[in-house]
Amino acid sequence: MNGEVIVCGHPPALEVEPGSATTIATGGVVPRGADAVVMIEHTELNEDEHSPAIDLHRAVAPGQFISYAGSDLARGEVVLRRGTRISSREIGMLAACGIATVDVVRKPKVAVLSTGDELVAPGGALTPARVYDSNGAIIAAAVVEAGGEPVPFGAFPDDEVALELAMRTALQTCDMVVLSGGTSKGAGDLSHRIVSKLGEPGILVHGVALKPGKPLCLAVIEGKPLVVLPGFPTSAIFTFHAFVAPVIRARAGLPPETARTVEAEVPVRIASELGRQEFALVALVAGEAGPIAFPIAKGSGAVTSFSQADGFLEIDALAAALDAGTQARVSLIGENAAMPDLVVMGSHCIALDVVLGVLAERGFADDSGDSATVEASRERFNVSVAA
Amino acid sequence: MNGEVIVCGHPPALEVEPGSATTIATGGVVPRGADAVVMIEHTELNEDEHSPAIDLHRAVAPGQFISYAGSDLARGEVVLRRGTRISSREIGMLAACGIATVDVVRKPKVAVLSTGDELVAPGGALTPARVYDSNGAIIAAAVVEAGGEPVPFGAFPDDEVALELAMRTALQTCDMVVLSGGTSKGAGDLSHRIVSKLGEPGILVHGVALKPGKPLCLAVIEGKPLVVLPGFPTSAIFTFHAFVAPVIRARAGLPPETARTVEAEVPVRIASELGRQEFALVALVAGEAGPIAFPIAKGSGAVTSFSQADGFLEIDALAAALDAGTQARVSLIGENAAMPDLVVMGSHCIALDVVLGVLAERGFADDSGDSATVEASRERFNVSVAA
Repeated sequence: MNGEVIVCGHPPALEVEPGSATTIATGGVVPRGADAVVMIEHTELNEDEHSPAIDLHRAVAPGQFISYAGSDLARGEVVLRRGTRISSREIGMLAACGIATVDVVRKPKVAVLSTGDELVAPGGALTPARVYDSNGAIIAAAVVEAGGEPVPFGAFPDDEVALELAMRTALQTCDMVVLSGGTSKGAGDLSHRIVSKLGEPGILVHGVALKPGKPLCLAVIEGKPLVVLPGFPTSAIFTFHAFVAPVIRARAGLPPETARTVEAEVPVRIASELGRQEFALVALVAGEAGPIAFPIAKGSGAVTSFSQADGFLEIDALAAALDAGTQARVSLIGENAAMPDLVVMGSHCIALDVVLGVLAERGFADDSGDSATVEASRERFNVSVAA
Repeated sequence: MNGEVIVCGHPPALEVEPGSATTIATGGVVPRGADAVVMIEHTELNEDEHSPAIDLHRAVAPGQFISYAGSDLARGEVVLRRGTRISSREIGMLAACGIATVDVVRKPKVAVLSTGDELVAPGGALTPARVYDSNGAIIAAAVVEAGGEPVPFGAFPDDEVALELAMRTALQTCDMVVLSGGTSKGAGDLSHRIVSKLGEPGILVHGVALKPGKPLCLAVIEGKPLVVLPGFPTSAIFTFHAFVAPVIRARAGLPPETARTVEAEVPVRIASELGRQEFALVALVAGEAGPIAFPIAKGSGAVTSFSQADGFLEIDALAAALDAGTQARVSLIGENAAMPDLVVMGSHCIALDVVLGVLAERGFADDSGDSATVEASRERFNVSVAA
């Protein structure tokens, strides 16, 4: 043990006899009789032959630099409550109490399947009239973000035997099953037909008055939730966030997600279908009187619309349109939704991409000092403007 | 392929001859000559013997329900820029382009060591005058939160030979080394002595004008950052966040963290040491004119002070105190810092813990509808109030 601090028996004293002081290391025990600690760098040994002493350079009060039992955590005090999410701060509390392991809620295992004759797994060769299965990858990643553990089963052609076998395996090995595709009416409701055979109580909801998202199918098979999402990417991800993510969060022991919203003006009329609540993806732009929300007009077949949007707004089922100039509440998507520094409208231009790439590398930041540079300098294309 | 949609050769037409229509599945190819798609549920076969036809229930415009090449992503368009953090949204963009794997920045491997004769690993038996090594666990978890991959080496007694060996192994196998403890002057600067022997250029900074955090030691050994944090838990975590986390984030390819701050009134005088910039941990309380920040008076030896604080404020090196009534900017700690519903001041009371536990289980929420129930109903103890 290295000598480090001096314990003084009779403070406050600016001179202490060597015999009444002991050196201990930081974290060491205060000897009986001592009631204060002095840092060794605030002392000096006075080697006067007749009265050797230790000079203290600072006044000392009783209790100085002593940690008393119970001053950090008292016996019986609640350290963490059930349901608390464990971050480095909570780990600090547990470690201080000597707790090396703790029971936590198991992450629900969520099987992720896609169906469609046109689907090719990313990484494979794309033949004519095929598209890559983006739903499988997006939903698996969104399961992680909702607190679950995805089990990717891959993309299946619209083959009833193979898909049913995969669904049965998924139900046996996982806590939840999410399938996307095979829900359209003309396909003979492939997914619906398979789910009807899997067990009790079976399908609870088939079809919702939402746009996008109408063909959604919600089922429970022997106590396990099973969901069939529409195959269109935007429809799939909207219905996932609205119906599936909250169930995963609840089963993972997480509180409901707090929606981050912002009031924005809608500068153009957005037409809507009567009878279905409609979600419109928007890009946010800083206006003079606050944020402006432009609709993204790519449609629910586009994969990129959800990824490139800043948020979405809801249009009531009984409204035929949202009029130009309306104030609407926009639910933000993604962690770092930020207003752009630069707004470019019109058709897409590849040359501009090069210019924007250079700006992004230079850390084009917005006024608030926010450092979300890439997001902030992203261009806004495919925005339909009435003017 | 299941019949699903009808392709019409000559829209707009409300009646189409069966011969001029073909059925295709969603996602299928539009046959040559066709220029619109109708949903099968909007059609009816009119089996009139003389002129069989398909009745369409809705008007059709050319291009309806057809996705054109390039409408989602155009050839040459930038999909993602370098430096973008990949979430489910970005994975959707990559999957839509068929990209199954992508090069990413490797998470830096950060060795985490603690030193101190008094340290016992959590889970072990605590003998008198010992404390659990909480720094190792907190720093390992904070490395994850900063984007790194921690490599826990455990707690070492203040033994120069064993610690030097561990430090050399850490430097060989990891990208960065973080040691906490062994920095006090009286300990003969154990960590400083070891680091001086490890390689070039060696120690760059030894001691900073911060409180807590003074004995911090920053070094570079053969291109690898090596940091010795003070052993006191609050000092260690403050200096980690101020000096180490930004380096880990940068090496992990992440942008600097955006500080979340709030203006608050400081209701009591907070004394400060002249000559060192001081960080004071505070608990936030909702006041009539905005947030109020109470200092947490546990001291830097307490493990729980950082874990229980809502944020911290900075006191200038040239100020001897922050006067009561001052407005200060509080940097928030943790994801869910929220004002409590209930504020209790005074000594700790175990009986109250039981009552608060019941309230927390019932989802005691705050006015804003925020669901951070546990945080919101947490009690505020150990707050020193002048009144």
